[in-house]
Amino acid sequence: MTRRFCQRAWLKPEKVDEYRRLHANAWPGVLRTIEECNLRNYRIHLLDTLVVSTFEYVGEDYEADMRRMEADPVTQDWWTHTKPCFLRHDEGIYYEDMEEIFRFDGGDAV
Amino acid sequence: MTRRFCQRAWLKPEKVDEYRRLHANAWPGVLRTIEECNLRNYRIHLLDTLVVSTFEYVGEDYEADMRRMEADPVTQDWWTHTKPCFLRHDEGIYYEDMEEIFRFDGGDAV
Repeated sequence: MTRRFCQRAWLKPEKVDEYRRLHANAWPGVLRTIEECNLRNYRIHLLDTLVVSTFEYVGEDYEADMRRMEADPVTQDWWTHTKPCFLRHDEGIYYEDMEEIFRFDGGDAV
Repeated sequence: MTRRFCQRAWLKPEKVDEYRRLHANAWPGVLRTIEECNLRNYRIHLLDTLVVSTFEYVGEDYEADMRRMEADPVTQDWWTHTKPCFLRHDEGIYYEDMEEIFRFDGGDAV
């Protein structure tokens, strides 16, 4: 069953442009790992220093796939560029899960 | 063509529970209007006092459909309950559009 995620993080003000630039040209190896780890419809949104990511997980074991992602050398290299952009990098705090409090799919309700 | 939106807003700390409660039992008339105004897959996420809404617009004229929503009496009544929950209610600031800076759909790239 597809699980939907929405996550929030804060960027350092002086790193917003760099974070945007990195994601405008994300590395093929990183995208390949996202795909192989069963994430779909991955989007990141920005407003001021707030970033929000949304994605769907279509695999069978989210935690195992996240461990697989963390073990990928290309993704590890990518993170050496992206992680220092986060405000709370020194505390090891990046994207945090948000709670879904409303859902209305529509499409067959009228 | 489907347009995807991601919007951010801040709640008053003392109104977070009320906002959550309202959306746990959203009014049928409000949902009907969302549907009729061509919004789909509408979700709201919460973390602390931050709320993030995501939805898709599948109609032909977003601005016209938003005007239609604003003209709906049931939605107007609903907003008398929800809008005072927002931190910047006095300034008339509610959900604001976020910019999409990364998108990877996946699903056929491997």
